[in-house]
Amino acid sequence: MSQRAFQDYYPAEFAHCFGCGRLNEQGHQLKSYWDGEETVARFTPAAYYTGGVPHNTYGGLIASLLDCHGAASAAAAACRTEGRTLESLPFTRFVTGTLNVVFHQPTPIDAEFEIRGTIDEVGERKVVVSLALFAQGKKCVTGTMVAVKLRQ
Amino acid sequence: MSQRAFQDYYPAEFAHCFGCGRLNEQGHQLKSYWDGEETVARFTPAAYYTGGVPHNTYGGLIASLLDCHGAASAAAAACRTEGRTLESLPFTRFVTGTLNVVFHQPTPIDAEFEIRGTIDEVGERKVVVSLALFAQGKKCVTGTMVAVKLRQ
Repeated sequence: MSQRAFQDYYPAEFAHCFGCGRLNEQGHQLKSYWDGEETVARFTPAAYYTGGVPHNTYGGLIASLLDCHGAASAAAAACRTEGRTLESLPFTRFVTGTLNVVFHQPTPIDAEFEIRGTIDEVGERKVVVSLALFAQGKKCVTGTMVAVKLRQ
Repeated sequence: MSQRAFQDYYPAEFAHCFGCGRLNEQGHQLKSYWDGEETVARFTPAAYYTGGVPHNTYGGLIASLLDCHGAASAAAAACRTEGRTLESLPFTRFVTGTLNVVFHQPTPIDAEFEIRGTIDEVGERKVVVSLALFAQGKKCVTGTMVAVKLRQ
């Protein structure tokens, strides 16, 4: 994809998140994009992110990826609803209010993950995002996030 | 604490979790213990686990710590309910079924975290654990996990 990711628009002050901050050199640097009405991010885990069961992925990494993709999707959805781009100011940063994760089946570690977001609701201060993580064509994990607009 | 942590009893095959496996050299190696009727783990994050907001902790790390502490607490609770120790065989490994996390206030990163678990329910195949993360004396995050016994 050639377009800039949602996270690429975060002001430097908010761009150090371990999960998705472009200025966090040790972090995952997750990148989220629009894909029609949905949002999408892709991520290939390092082999040491194994879970408690051999060849499966550590649940914490999965929750982390859903968390960052959800918060970025919320910011993008809020801007789109307001009819403006992520480049416009003031930048709207969202943080996680609640995150619910359901592990349906083990997530293999030797795979590229596709994380998809669907915007369920855009309110004045909250955005609700449904999330799903796919690996090797299987929907392994789903989640729901309530993201809250940061007071600035 | 001088006793062995729950995770120290995991058979080698199940001891490579990035969050709490003693054999994962790159991982967090979280250690969980009984503290009366509750369970407890302590963790001090590296500075690069910052979240999207300066000086706060990355939500993904918090979800990860709750996840690993919850699954370990479930295993310990199942053994205690059966009147046996974690050393006894067969070892009972739990994996996460669902994890719900509520972020009540920002979690400062320059702190030792205390993660506490309360066993709400021990069933034949599932254990329900309530979780809370404290930093600098404040309850920053709470959660609930349904842990599922691994079929072996």
